[in-house]
Amino acid sequence: MSIQVIAVEGMPEVAAGDDVAGLIAARTALQDGDVVVVTQKIVSKAEGRMVAIDAADADAERARWAERESVRIVARRGPVIIAETAHGFVCANAGVDASNVPRGWLALLPADPDASAARIRDGLRAAAGADVGVIVSDTFGRAWRNGQIDVAIGAAGIVPIRDYVGVEDTFGTPMHSTQIAVADEIAGAAELVMGKVGGVPVAIVRGLDVRGNGTARMLIRPPEDDLFRTGATEP
Amino acid sequence: MSIQVIAVEGMPEVAAGDDVAGLIAARTALQDGDVVVVTQKIVSKAEGRMVAIDAADADAERARWAERESVRIVARRGPVIIAETAHGFVCANAGVDASNVPRGWLALLPADPDASAARIRDGLRAAAGADVGVIVSDTFGRAWRNGQIDVAIGAAGIVPIRDYVGVEDTFGTPMHSTQIAVADEIAGAAELVMGKVGGVPVAIVRGLDVRGNGTARMLIRPPEDDLFRTGATEP
Repeated sequence: MSIQVIAVEGMPEVAAGDDVAGLIAARTALQDGDVVVVTQKIVSKAEGRMVAIDAADADAERARWAERESVRIVARRGPVIIAETAHGFVCANAGVDASNVPRGWLALLPADPDASAARIRDGLRAAAGADVGVIVSDTFGRAWRNGQIDVAIGAAGIVPIRDYVGVEDTFGTPMHSTQIAVADEIAGAAELVMGKVGGVPVAIVRGLDVRGNGTARMLIRPPEDDLFRTGATEP
Repeated sequence: MSIQVIAVEGMPEVAAGDDVAGLIAARTALQDGDVVVVTQKIVSKAEGRMVAIDAADADAERARWAERESVRIVARRGPVIIAETAHGFVCANAGVDASNVPRGWLALLPADPDASAARIRDGLRAAAGADVGVIVSDTFGRAWRNGQIDVAIGAAGIVPIRDYVGVEDTFGTPMHSTQIAVADEIAGAAELVMGKVGGVPVAIVRGLDVRGNGTARMLIRPPEDDLFRTGATEP
């Protein structure tokens, strides 16, 4: 078995109201079963989830917007907060981001990234005639490990978790707890061909069969199962 | 740009003393620059990091070994501990694992997974004449998100983190904090073609240029930077 991860080259800078699905379909030949990974940044731009800020006071503006987008502060280090968003994501600055946006602006997360993914999926079916899965990805830090990885914050048309609970391993022993977050692994694989400075906000993962009706909300651990509700606060 | 993720099919069950590099080289044609991802389980088997347990008391035995392999308990839920290992990894049961091992045995993590990766890399150079990177992967849970993903616990011949700090984004703004843990994204991509029940413990990621001299130890967040040193303890 092998899969391909293919960068979609030549995407233009996206502005509010742009048709992301149309822009993608015009630049690549999609196949049924492809998973199309779209970075949060262009989804936020297309959906107008950008806010104008005072560029001379950018750090404070960003901190203000991060607090505003937070429902709970999980940890704090100096000016950076690790916060829970209204969606339930736990991430730096509640996903409020100044990179790859014009000076004087901040990008907020899409209001409903699963709905964003579903709209793009519908748009790709209309524009390209292909039945694809869509993931909206963002770059999140992790507890305990250095560096960030891309994960799925929105999804449509895929099964985000491959559940092996009760499935027998190669020795016939049923597995107790293995549930693989394939949507996050797909988002991370897509990041490998995107980079952060090459202007490649879309990639295709081809050759996997993950079709289904899940959402990225299924990847959010409910509070009652979360052993890491709060972390340290440092000045 | 595109990359391929290729399962190495036909690997046999591995036993203590087996030459993992030789087994891989006999089953696939490697190219310079490939990243060869090998699951921890076969590395532990080849290195004899297996312990015999009383199969009639498997859960208690596993809990006992997990405590023994831990240097610190980070959180606890019933019989499962989230623990820091001597390597510095934070993971369920300190990496002690009963899946895909024969009944009556447990797999411990390799003693030094970076050294394991380096040995396999040297072996692949000798057996296949190819200059490849090697990642030893394992399946870890995460804070705040459901499901597990594969990450790099050992590495050789690669740069595990792509550092964008100070690099200008597409708008010419220097990025503050973006460091992408590409080794973890590569491990996750490899998992997509492996699955957990198909007996595919090795995959090749081809088409990325991540050659360098890093290790997976670089992915471990030092205690002084760790905001999530402890979590909840639940009966």
